[in-house]
Amino acid sequence: MNFSFYMPTKVLVGSLTEFSDLIKGFGVKPCVVCGKSSAKLCGALADIKEIFGDIAVFNKIEPNPTITSVKDGAEFAKENNADFIIGVGGGSPLDAAKMIAVLAEEDISFDDLSNAKRLPLLLIPTTIGTGSEVTKYSILTDEKSHSKINIASDLLFPDIAVLDAKYCRGLPVSVARNTALDALSHVIEGMLSKKASPISDMFAAEAIRIISSKFSSLIEGKITDTDYENLLFASNLSGFVIAQTGTCAVHACGYALTSEKNIDHGRANALLLCDVIRRFPHENTDKIFKIMHLSYIEFSLIVNTIIGEKEQITKEEIENFTKKSMLAKNISNGIWAPTEDEVREIYANSLEVVS
Amino acid sequence: MNFSFYMPTKVLVGSLTEFSDLIKGFGVKPCVVCGKSSAKLCGALADIKEIFGDIAVFNKIEPNPTITSVKDGAEFAKENNADFIIGVGGGSPLDAAKMIAVLAEEDISFDDLSNAKRLPLLLIPTTIGTGSEVTKYSILTDEKSHSKINIASDLLFPDIAVLDAKYCRGLPVSVARNTALDALSHVIEGMLSKKASPISDMFAAEAIRIISSKFSSLIEGKITDTDYENLLFASNLSGFVIAQTGTCAVHACGYALTSEKNIDHGRANALLLCDVIRRFPHENTDKIFKIMHLSYIEFSLIVNTIIGEKEQITKEEIENFTKKSMLAKNISNGIWAPTEDEVREIYANSLEVVS
Repeated sequence: MNFSFYMPTKVLVGSLTEFSDLIKGFGVKPCVVCGKSSAKLCGALADIKEIFGDIAVFNKIEPNPTITSVKDGAEFAKENNADFIIGVGGGSPLDAAKMIAVLAEEDISFDDLSNAKRLPLLLIPTTIGTGSEVTKYSILTDEKSHSKINIASDLLFPDIAVLDAKYCRGLPVSVARNTALDALSHVIEGMLSKKASPISDMFAAEAIRIISSKFSSLIEGKITDTDYENLLFASNLSGFVIAQTGTCAVHACGYALTSEKNIDHGRANALLLCDVIRRFPHENTDKIFKIMHLSYIEFSLIVNTIIGEKEQITKEEIENFTKKSMLAKNISNGIWAPTEDEVREIYANSLEVVS
Repeated sequence: MNFSFYMPTKVLVGSLTEFSDLIKGFGVKPCVVCGKSSAKLCGALADIKEIFGDIAVFNKIEPNPTITSVKDGAEFAKENNADFIIGVGGGSPLDAAKMIAVLAEEDISFDDLSNAKRLPLLLIPTTIGTGSEVTKYSILTDEKSHSKINIASDLLFPDIAVLDAKYCRGLPVSVARNTALDALSHVIEGMLSKKASPISDMFAAEAIRIISSKFSSLIEGKITDTDYENLLFASNLSGFVIAQTGTCAVHACGYALTSEKNIDHGRANALLLCDVIRRFPHENTDKIFKIMHLSYIEFSLIVNTIIGEKEQITKEEIENFTKKSMLAKNISNGIWAPTEDEVREIYANSLEVVS
C-alpha cells in the first residue's frame, strides 16, 4: 500500500439554520458568492441573511467563471469589508468562491498558492454533482486563452461544507440529471485513476451504489426529497474521491465540449462517459458494473436514456477538440489513457457527427 | 440525514523514509514520544534519526500513561528545544504525544483546550489497534483519582499520521491479537453508536471486512506482512470511525478491567465484546454479522478462540467495576445502553467468576 488521504473540510449534513451557532463563529459579515438567481430562488440567501443580518452578495458568477469575475468578486468582498466568504451554488460559484477567498485576503499570483492565506470559507452546494465543496480545486476560465485553468492547492479545501438538500429540491430536471451524472463520472474516473486508493475506492463504491439506485428517478425525472438528500450526499462523496484521485479522460475530453460548444459541464462528461470507460481494462471496469449490478450494455442504455438527444459535432470540431484534450493534464491520470486517434473516436462515438 | 464528518489529519500510507521530504517541512528538531523500547526495536527510531539527525527521545511513556508522564514529556520537549512532536507506538504513546504537543506549547488546563495551541504533531502507530493517529482523543490516567480521563478536542487531531506496516511486523502475537480485536471493537461500537452516520458506517464496514478476513491468521498466530499492512489500515479506519462516533458500552466496561486489573486495553474490550453486542437490537447487529458472513455463534467462537483462557473476576470486583462503568460517559453512547444489572451480567459472562 502506498497512498495518502487528506480532506480537512468539516462536512455538516442537515439544515443550514440548525448549524447557525457554529457558522456564526466564522465572522461578522459574510460575502455570499453565487450565480444570478439560484441562491435566492432556492432559499439559501434568505437563510444566510436570517443568520447574519448584514451580508454582502456578489451574485455575478457565470457558468464556467472567468478570472475577471473572480477578481471582481474579491474586490467586491474587500469593498464591503467582508470577513469571510460563503459560496452558494453549483461548481461554478463554489470554485469561484474559493479563489475569491484567497484574493480578498491578498492579491497574489494564481500560480503559487503555497504561502498564500485566505478568508474563512464556507461552501453550500445547491446541485447534486459538483463535489467542489470538499476539493482543493478551483477550475476557472482564462478568457484570454479561452481555456480552463485548474488551480490545485490544499489552501482551497474549504473550512466547512454544509449539505442542506432542501436547496436542491427546485433544480430543473435537466440540471439534476447533468449534475448527478457528473458526480457519477467523478467516482467512476476516481476508481479508474492511477491515484485510486483503498480509501478513495471505498467512497467511490458508496457513491456508485447510491447514484445507481436513483437511475429510475433520473430517467423518469421524478426526483423526491429523499432522492435529493441521497444524491447530494453521493455528490459530496464524489468530491472526497476526486480530492484524492483527480479526474481522467472523461473530464479531459469534456472540457472542450464546454468551453467550445457551451455544453453544460456535467452533461459533457455524461455524453463521453460510456465510450471512455469501455476502453479501460475490463478487470477494472467490471468491479464498477458489479457495484451497480448492471452490465456495460445496460449501463450505457440507462445513461444514454437519461442524456436524451445528443448534441451534434463536426469533423472540424473533433480535430480541434482532440488537440485540446491531448494537452489536458488529467488525460493521462487514468490507469489507461487514450491515444490521439482514440480521442477522435470517443468524440465521434459520443456525439452525433455531422459534416 | 443529520450528521457531521471531520478528520483533518493527513494520512500517509507507505514507508516513513519515503515521506521524509514532507515530514522535514515540520521543523528542525523533533521530540520523539514513545515507550521504553518498542520504537527502537521496530526500527522507527533509527529511521527518524536518519531523517533528522538531531532528535530528542522521551521514551518514558508507560501503558495507560499518567498526567505526570505527559507533563514530564512536555518539560523534556521544552528543555530540548523541540519544535515538533513525533509520537511512536500504540495508543499510549500516541495519546500522550498529543497532550505533550499541547503542554510543550503552553501550560494550560486539560479541561478547556478551545483556545489552546500545540506544536506540530506527527503520529506513527506501531500496533494494529489504536486508531489514535486519526482521532481527537487523548485518554490519560489520573493517578490521584485512579481513573481515566478522556480529553476530546479538535486540536488533538494530529497533523500527519504515517502508516508504515513494517514497524508492526515484530509485534508479539498477543499484542497483535489484542490490538486487532480492539480495532474490531472500535468499528463495531461505531456502527452501534447513536452518532453513527453514513460516512462512519462506510469506514466501519470496510474495517470489519478487512479484520474478519484475517481471523484465521489471528487464530493461528501466523500474521504475514500483508496481513499487517491490511490490519494497520483497518486500525486506521477504526480511528476514523471513533473520531466521529465515539465508543459505547464495550469500552465503557473495559476501562475498569484495565485500570483495576491491569488487563491490556484491547484485550479488555475483546473479552467483553461478544456479550455486549448480543444485547443490541438484532436488526443492527445482523448488519455487522452479514458483513463478516458469520453468525453470532460463529463470531463469538472465533473471538473467544483468539482470546484464549479468560481472566478471573471476583463478585466484589464485579460490583466495584459495575459502579465505575455506570459513570463512564460512553456507556450511554450506543443505540442501546445496559442497565446496572446488565453490566454485572456482562462482567460475569465475559470473565471467569471466582468467589
